[in-house]
Amino acid sequence: MSTYVNPGSAQAGAHGHVYREVTPEQTAVEERLVDNVLKSFASCEDPRLQELMQSLVRHLHSFIREVRLTEEEWGEAIDFLTKAGHITTDTRQEFILLSDTLGASMQTINVNNQAYKNATEATVFGPFFVEDSPQIELGGDMSFGAVGEPCWVEGTVHDTEGNPLPGARIEVWEADEDGLYDVQYDDGRRAARAHLFADEDGAYRFWGLTPTPYPIPDDGPVGKMLAAVGRSPLRAAHLHFMVSHAGARTLVTHIFPEGDPIGRKDTVFGVKDSLIKNFEQQPAGTPTPDGRDLGEATWSKVRFDIVLAPTGA
Amino acid sequence: MSTYVNPGSAQAGAHGHVYREVTPEQTAVEERLVDNVLKSFASCEDPRLQELMQSLVRHLHSFIREVRLTEEEWGEAIDFLTKAGHITTDTRQEFILLSDTLGASMQTINVNNQAYKNATEATVFGPFFVEDSPQIELGGDMSFGAVGEPCWVEGTVHDTEGNPLPGARIEVWEADEDGLYDVQYDDGRRAARAHLFADEDGAYRFWGLTPTPYPIPDDGPVGKMLAAVGRSPLRAAHLHFMVSHAGARTLVTHIFPEGDPIGRKDTVFGVKDSLIKNFEQQPAGTPTPDGRDLGEATWSKVRFDIVLAPTGA
Repeated sequence: MSTYVNPGSAQAGAHGHVYREVTPEQTAVEERLVDNVLKSFASCEDPRLQELMQSLVRHLHSFIREVRLTEEEWGEAIDFLTKAGHITTDTRQEFILLSDTLGASMQTINVNNQAYKNATEATVFGPFFVEDSPQIELGGDMSFGAVGEPCWVEGTVHDTEGNPLPGARIEVWEADEDGLYDVQYDDGRRAARAHLFADEDGAYRFWGLTPTPYPIPDDGPVGKMLAAVGRSPLRAAHLHFMVSHAGARTLVTHIFPEGDPIGRKDTVFGVKDSLIKNFEQQPAGTPTPDGRDLGEATWSKVRFDIVLAPTGA
Repeated sequence: MSTYVNPGSAQAGAHGHVYREVTPEQTAVEERLVDNVLKSFASCEDPRLQELMQSLVRHLHSFIREVRLTEEEWGEAIDFLTKAGHITTDTRQEFILLSDTLGASMQTINVNNQAYKNATEATVFGPFFVEDSPQIELGGDMSFGAVGEPCWVEGTVHDTEGNPLPGARIEVWEADEDGLYDVQYDDGRRAARAHLFADEDGAYRFWGLTPTPYPIPDDGPVGKMLAAVGRSPLRAAHLHFMVSHAGARTLVTHIFPEGDPIGRKDTVFGVKDSLIKNFEQQPAGTPTPDGRDLGEATWSKVRFDIVLAPTGA
């Protein structure tokens, strides 16, 4: 097996990124290479794989040629990917963080959840969904003891024709007020996540927690990148939903509290205007919708009416 | 620290890559995201880093939107990068293999070594250069016992005005006939590499080995990718040169034997027409240029006249 180490060093720094005139001869050399690389995939028997690789090559080469990437910068890119690979484990995924912080995850969600009539918009799925969430009744509490301000969430589930979707399955999950999901604790707790079913009118309601902002893991190369470009590692406060019903396209989305200082600066670009909701703050002692006694605790309430696109939309 | 695992699974396979009509509303959603991601780099204080990140984001999003990347494919890409990161060590660099096999390394070389008049073309540096190669005299043998057919190499070093470059430093290195470089053996040998200096007329000559093809490391994700697209892991046979002289742009290149069955299929795209040379096969017993007695061994000879561009060309 060959050893394979970074060649970038040999001429690193020998060339700056000063833009020289690119002569027709030079352009021909660069385009000939792109053609040769594209041709190398000509005998690929999987047409989709061929399409993906050839498109990737075209865009990768366009990037290198457009910025006139220096050999030193190339070496730094190799080093970044190497560090990202080495920090990645079964429970820490630096490449997903990279995809998220470059908006690639969100763009993939967009492409696969195309805008359809008045259907509710999708956003990033995130890493903290768990298959076996507890079921709660309508009006039940999904916090299961997670710390945070109580939040009454209610709304309806309809199709794009305005018909209610009775029995729609609604999965909800969120971080506690310390910015941690249950799976981030080592004690195996299940909290701040549940599923429930809409009633015969497509209506739903439950107690959760007022969402708070939290940082993505920023102790690796992606965190260093964010710092180098002057970006915050904070995610906008949010409450996760996954809503499904027979004949409907499954919706994966969040709702975001209006007025969150992070908001638009969400480091994974998950915020969409239509998903920003008014979480109305309620002073301590304000009567609750279901008569629950919260004692001296403040609480909030929010309405989220959900519209599902048809399957295949 | 947050755990961060692959979200791709949730909707993986829910959408094929069937191309749907992309509505104006959908296009607006996708373009708004690109704009938001570009804006997130607005406060980067390093203008070059900002330029690199914004161009990367534009091309990355163009790729995702053009191929309508599915969430399943996105997950496979994350998995590929993760495996590449985990196989990468100090002596095995899968990300460089990826860059090489996508032609990105060669394109970076092109961009940083622009075509200039009749200057000799550059090609990939490769991972096997060593700083402290032994010096040989003109006409000396750089093989130092490495196995392979002897090859007489001669030529000249000139500038693009046709002036000889006396004392030009010429580094040469290559794999032995088993396809291995000295550094790939565990015994610390130094063989099939050396440096020498051109004479007062810019002429040089030395004994090396007739180059033979060898595979890049293909037991990792890059090897699997090459197999999946029907590509060979073989590099075209080649002899490495790095040539430097005061006032000249350092040239990193190879020469390739005419008629090598790999040739154009070089898996790192290093082959350029101008670098393919006629290694003339000599039957056993053919008198050698310097009277060296090779007994019953066949040998070859090749001429490589080198032209260096001026510094900053």
